[in-house]
Amino acid sequence: MIQKYPSALLENAVNEFAKLPGIGRKTALRLVLHTLKRSPEEVTNFGQSVISLRNNVKYCTVCHNICDDEICSICNDPGRDASLVCVVENVKEVMAVENTGQFRGLYHVLGGIISPMEGIGPADLEIESLVERIKSGVVKEIILALSTTMEGDTTNFYIYRKLSGLEVQISVIARGVSIGDEIEYADEITLGRSIVNRTAFNDSFKT
Amino acid sequence: MIQKYPSALLENAVNEFAKLPGIGRKTALRLVLHTLKRSPEEVTNFGQSVISLRNNVKYCTVCHNICDDEICSICNDPGRDASLVCVVENVKEVMAVENTGQFRGLYHVLGGIISPMEGIGPADLEIESLVERIKSGVVKEIILALSTTMEGDTTNFYIYRKLSGLEVQISVIARGVSIGDEIEYADEITLGRSIVNRTAFNDSFKT
Repeated sequence: MIQKYPSALLENAVNEFAKLPGIGRKTALRLVLHTLKRSPEEVTNFGQSVISLRNNVKYCTVCHNICDDEICSICNDPGRDASLVCVVENVKEVMAVENTGQFRGLYHVLGGIISPMEGIGPADLEIESLVERIKSGVVKEIILALSTTMEGDTTNFYIYRKLSGLEVQISVIARGVSIGDEIEYADEITLGRSIVNRTAFNDSFKT
Repeated sequence: MIQKYPSALLENAVNEFAKLPGIGRKTALRLVLHTLKRSPEEVTNFGQSVISLRNNVKYCTVCHNICDDEICSICNDPGRDASLVCVVENVKEVMAVENTGQFRGLYHVLGGIISPMEGIGPADLEIESLVERIKSGVVKEIILALSTTMEGDTTNFYIYRKLSGLEVQISVIARGVSIGDEIEYADEITLGRSIVNRTAFNDSFKT
């Protein structure tokens, strides 16, 4: 369908929205028309918030999570266990783990996972800084909490090899049947893994 | 789920994206993280395009469609039939009708339809300007091309009453079974209407 826009400004704004992931031209037009119904102040706030984030974003010099200062509030928290580091892909995963309320250690944000398909290699990620961080000697254990995909497994293995010889325990998050899932519908690899890595019944009540 | 963002800038940008229709907080975060991967110039272009549209948008003084000048390119086109005016809800419908390639008249954009549920009354729409436009005497026929919903029908009827006594033919777009639809699955109101408003067989080949 050839779309002829009645205004170059409108077309430009639609094009910009359509560059966002998962937003097609129809949705983009709907979003743009919605902005026309808002006050100029609201729209300016919207536009400026995005520009300001991009220009002023900082990354924690310790864990490389997004933050507003040199060191993020988690790394700065004296109540947290600096000897335990959870290795995650991105800020989304930090937020997901924080939401569980089960983790009192620190994080290390890789900024992605190794993905030859997308041209992301180890050098593009914060792996060297992880090695340096562990060499400094404070960290006793790292938990690899990457996606349970081929890319995640590749990255896990790469980090495992990089850290071999260093004095650190390397753990991986437990893989198994999700809570609330029916055994019948669990895929065989997950179910197989959950049988091999079974836990003592008493341990299964621990929260 | 309580989301604790590690950065106020990030949280602010997520909040702004989440104000857009159909975008929840998860999608907003995904869009915001995507903008962090783009260059500052690209993100500035994005933000500025929206701000610029909102601040510099113009509406055609004749048909009230969005445009870049005083009068839009359609109203300015001498090849179009100024005696025929298609009344539509918004710029999206102008684009939809233009895409058919079947209409060579002009438009009148109401800017919405009467919807008591959303607090939109006749005074919020470009209905008075439509009456004035018809009183000027150039328009011979208007085609009401609003949605075939209760709100659309209400607006159609309101305009019909407003124009009673004026020298103008008032038409409504044909309602009937969509092309490509199976009769079996057409709803009874549409099917009933398409039987009552049947057209001569020869006319049905006209494009």
